[in-house]
Amino acid sequence: MIVKNRLLNFGDNVIFQNNDWFSFSLDSLLLSNFVKIKLTDKNILDMCSGNAPIPMLLTFRTNAKIYGIELQKEVFDLGKKSILENNMNNQIDFINDNIKNLSSYFKSEYFDVITCNPPYFAFNKDSYLNDNYIKTIARHEIEINLEEIISYSKVFLKNGGTLSLVHRPDRLIQIINLMQKYNIEPKRMRLVYPKKNKAANILLIEGVKNGNPGLKVLPPLITHDNSGGYSLEVKSMFGDDFNVAE
Amino acid sequence: MIVKNRLLNFGDNVIFQNNDWFSFSLDSLLLSNFVKIKLTDKNILDMCSGNAPIPMLLTFRTNAKIYGIELQKEVFDLGKKSILENNMNNQIDFINDNIKNLSSYFKSEYFDVITCNPPYFAFNKDSYLNDNYIKTIARHEIEINLEEIISYSKVFLKNGGTLSLVHRPDRLIQIINLMQKYNIEPKRMRLVYPKKNKAANILLIEGVKNGNPGLKVLPPLITHDNSGGYSLEVKSMFGDDFNVAE
Repeated sequence: MIVKNRLLNFGDNVIFQNNDWFSFSLDSLLLSNFVKIKLTDKNILDMCSGNAPIPMLLTFRTNAKIYGIELQKEVFDLGKKSILENNMNNQIDFINDNIKNLSSYFKSEYFDVITCNPPYFAFNKDSYLNDNYIKTIARHEIEINLEEIISYSKVFLKNGGTLSLVHRPDRLIQIINLMQKYNIEPKRMRLVYPKKNKAANILLIEGVKNGNPGLKVLPPLITHDNSGGYSLEVKSMFGDDFNVAE
Repeated sequence: MIVKNRLLNFGDNVIFQNNDWFSFSLDSLLLSNFVKIKLTDKNILDMCSGNAPIPMLLTFRTNAKIYGIELQKEVFDLGKKSILENNMNNQIDFINDNIKNLSSYFKSEYFDVITCNPPYFAFNKDSYLNDNYIKTIARHEIEINLEEIISYSKVFLKNGGTLSLVHRPDRLIQIINLMQKYNIEPKRMRLVYPKKNKAANILLIEGVKNGNPGLKVLPPLITHDNSGGYSLEVKSMFGDDFNVAE
């Protein structure tokens, strides 16, 4: 069922989603908060955009042109609908295609910033897959994998441009290896912990194309307080009545 | 001046140090708490032992034989004196030598666990060095560097044995690269933050020789509360009147 949710803390803006097969998540919200955007940035690309939460949230942080690309037509349509309803279509250009076709739209070294909340789970024949095909594509590395995302980022980032990813902490080592393989040096990292006494469950990491070595680990982000509600820091990002799928 | 401090939370035990050129630090204490020790572990090695805080603290956690190795004679002598005064000389064998000579003492694949609080700072001709030579050796990679520590760990760890390091977060990427180069897979990591809203300043990381990929990021460790005193978690590790050089 398609539902229309308020886009959080941001006035009358809305986001359409289908809770049966695609809801935007805390992860996308945290990435849209984590990514560093400079006043001089001209072009931003969000890969694996889903129903476009990241492009829409970034409109509140920058006047740069924002591009989103999403492969799945049904999910893309929801994002497009929200972008139009919010009158964001001047700033956001939303593309329904595979990342592998980016060169049909952009010349190389076009972007100052690339963001991505990619499929989290490696795909192999033993993978437990959702019987829902749309969900499966969004969560598993079937149409695109981490190495492809990072290698395309290298091609389309300017020298000194940044790639910001949200992922699972257990993929950190692989992310570092792949960023380095494609000359994207990890520079900023934030670990997100569900409670202050729990292991990290979300990783935010930014690499700089052709950057110098030297990683900064930002303050911890603890998403829930002891009572199980969202922490003050999360509420301050996204509003007191913040509530999304996790 | 040589001073005799109480060894924290641990009864009447003491640690001798010379505050002019060598005090054990919070880092060593946190590493002694972080390292995983199994009941079946037989032999543990602490490299770059300084005045032996880690070997001594580990006696409260295990009955395994503990070896420490420290290059600098003056610092070694302080450690030896503390070990004797605490009657720990049956469990701890403290060696005054360079790690590069380990093969004179041990056969390869001898250790279940290796710990190390190494010199933190890379050495090059532009390095700012302490005019105090003992401090300089303890803090800068002059006599031993990170790659040597990790390569010797590979040689002397059993298959499945662990290397636990404490270091600066800005060396994380290099530590991961070097562990992987020597087949020590990073498996557990804990970031230590001085306050809950500050960037991490200490990294604790454990790798397993020939381990499978898959990193776990443990809960954040926040060392100080808002008033600037040690946090409850640090006090619970090391005692209410805990106070060391940082």
